[in-house]
Amino acid sequence: MLTDYVEEGALPHVFQELWAEIAPIGRDPDTGGYVRYAWSPPELALREWFRAQAALRGMPVTDDGNGNLFATWAPEGPGGGGLGVLTGSHFDSVPHGGGYDGPLGIVSAFLAVDALRTRGVTPTRPVTVAAFAEEEGSRFGLACLGSRLLTGALAADRAAALTDREGIRLGDVLGGAPAGARPDLLATVDAFVELHIEQGRALDVPVGVASAIWPHGRWRMDVEGEGNHAGTTLMADRRDPMLTYAFAVLAANKEARLRGGHATMGRVAVTPNATNAIPAAVRGWLDARAADQETLDALVDGIARKVAERAARDGTSVRFTAESVTGEVRFDETLAGRTAALLGAPILPTGAGHDAGVLAAHVPTAMLFVRNPTGVSHAPAEAATDDDCAAGVEALSRVLEELSAREAS
Amino acid sequence: MLTDYVEEGALPHVFQELWAEIAPIGRDPDTGGYVRYAWSPPELALREWFRAQAALRGMPVTDDGNGNLFATWAPEGPGGGGLGVLTGSHFDSVPHGGGYDGPLGIVSAFLAVDALRTRGVTPTRPVTVAAFAEEEGSRFGLACLGSRLLTGALAADRAAALTDREGIRLGDVLGGAPAGARPDLLATVDAFVELHIEQGRALDVPVGVASAIWPHGRWRMDVEGEGNHAGTTLMADRRDPMLTYAFAVLAANKEARLRGGHATMGRVAVTPNATNAIPAAVRGWLDARAADQETLDALVDGIARKVAERAARDGTSVRFTAESVTGEVRFDETLAGRTAALLGAPILPTGAGHDAGVLAAHVPTAMLFVRNPTGVSHAPAEAATDDDCAAGVEALSRVLEELSAREAS
Repeated sequence: MLTDYVEEGALPHVFQELWAEIAPIGRDPDTGGYVRYAWSPPELALREWFRAQAALRGMPVTDDGNGNLFATWAPEGPGGGGLGVLTGSHFDSVPHGGGYDGPLGIVSAFLAVDALRTRGVTPTRPVTVAAFAEEEGSRFGLACLGSRLLTGALAADRAAALTDREGIRLGDVLGGAPAGARPDLLATVDAFVELHIEQGRALDVPVGVASAIWPHGRWRMDVEGEGNHAGTTLMADRRDPMLTYAFAVLAANKEARLRGGHATMGRVAVTPNATNAIPAAVRGWLDARAADQETLDALVDGIARKVAERAARDGTSVRFTAESVTGEVRFDETLAGRTAALLGAPILPTGAGHDAGVLAAHVPTAMLFVRNPTGVSHAPAEAATDDDCAAGVEALSRVLEELSAREAS
Repeated sequence: MLTDYVEEGALPHVFQELWAEIAPIGRDPDTGGYVRYAWSPPELALREWFRAQAALRGMPVTDDGNGNLFATWAPEGPGGGGLGVLTGSHFDSVPHGGGYDGPLGIVSAFLAVDALRTRGVTPTRPVTVAAFAEEEGSRFGLACLGSRLLTGALAADRAAALTDREGIRLGDVLGGAPAGARPDLLATVDAFVELHIEQGRALDVPVGVASAIWPHGRWRMDVEGEGNHAGTTLMADRRDPMLTYAFAVLAANKEARLRGGHATMGRVAVTPNATNAIPAAVRGWLDARAADQETLDALVDGIARKVAERAARDGTSVRFTAESVTGEVRFDETLAGRTAALLGAPILPTGAGHDAGVLAAHVPTAMLFVRNPTGVSHAPAEAATDDDCAAGVEALSRVLEELSAREAS
């Protein structure tokens, strides 16, 4: 692959070839979407692929005990150098999501290492490719699980007890409690750069640089009523939690439109979920985001207040529980500015959470976005052209070159 | 058991003892509800129990090739007598339903046979205890599956292709296509009496007699939108099918209140059902019932029209499909009147469908209801006292005695 690389204009083809290796893994032929839950067979296959790619490039792989993998290129030889300049993303997907969200950042990272080597760059510190675990939270319900553990934002014992939809504990999947915070590893990171597909329609050039991540969170909403017979129970006698849930869906949408944030209720679980039974309980999840914390707080409070009023009228009870809440992340302004200047790329905020948002509290962090012509993400229509992906690799390699050549700060 | 029976006042105790044999089968200790899907291990255990009870009483068991079981007491000896006076109900439950809905009619039927024998009654025609298959439709989605097949209301080949939530076909469960209509068997039925727990709060004495079943049906509602990222997709750019679903839930409730029918949306399936994804599709089910066909038609049309208007505003598409629709069933008025007079019991209609509603189009049919103090059904709180259940057995035995002693009509 290194030979092809040097040919002018070959990068889209090189990208396409490497991308084709992982494109079939975890793809549902019916929906065209990807089902790559953390530590499921497809995601484990991608981890094997990661190890194989690292081996091909002579990059030893470290597991941090939290499910995160690190493949390090240490030009000065192994030992003592730590992680250095870190780049990468995650393999896991939302159910039937797109193929680029996550894996693009890992594939691009390996190709950026190839680009540096092809250009004869010898970095003065290590360059490490990372694969973070359970970024989407689709399996254990907590987004950025791997990076939160690594940084200590999530306690190891709390994480060990998390269960997936089938009741399997994270501790069982890992074969024991996760290692938790690794300040020893973090201390060796000079900077983190995550390349990611753009997830809206905000980018009209191939590559952009992130300024900030909106504050955002997930709230579980538990509505309890009284299960009963759909045929024989008088309308006036009902305490139907589905009504409260339905009201919440519409209220969340309306409040978000009025206040300028984003609110989504895309997941629901009904007990008993039978056509001829009034449900006993409905559990919904609210995903809410806004450009600033004040707006987000007002949005969530406004929804919760309106739903509580409705529950009183429905004869149901409702409880909101914050499952994960992340304040605004402003990426390192100096780094973002320098990166944007280096690439001639625009700077833009995003409503999506990322491992970079978690790492940003600990190390200088930047994000690169690759244009998504459909504007769709977390769904099969998510897309990127090979040319834009190649531009992403090129941009990432330039940023890594600059970061790995600088004196330690 | 026959010995105890003759003691004055022993019937509640006799009922309690037999009831205790099946009470633990399929009960979820967490919810207290029953999960007895047709042909699942608990329901198969109940079928074994049925065969054992029949054997204890010297009643040969026939399978009609549709999953329905018939245990016949033929005082004139086996052969030629057919089914005669038929009584019974079903074993299957809705998910986490009550324990009485269905099994009470089968347990009471065996005890009513015991009562006849204890009283020295020798019927002039056979008395048969029936266990109908998949009455709730909780597994294959079609209520009264067994009785519909037996009567030809459902074609055998259409039924064979029905699949459960895991994709298993009914034909696979039965080990081949069902037999379908059995006019040969039906021709031997003189009358059918189904005893059932009452499912509302309509009965203030131990036993009542049914006049009619409201027209009712199930409609599947498929809403399609555009799956997308919950964080990055502008509110104005969304085509969120969950909004259309939520509107439908509230519209169904409102229309039912305004028009005097019952409407419930208790089951939903979301694709992909992830917290951070706007759904691509939401499938809901509408259960609607009303005292007369005109009201039911207006109710369903009214809901569908309002939902279609909303879908246009949401940028989604919506399609309603009738999965099963049953017109009003008026039970044999002469039989109901005579039964009520015999028992001194009130006559009342019900909003719930039953196998008796399907059989009523083919043979003289009556239903007895046993009081339900909670008024709750299709949920764990469903209840009946042993005294009321004993009164039900007693009433059923009187009706069977009268029906089996009469000259064939």
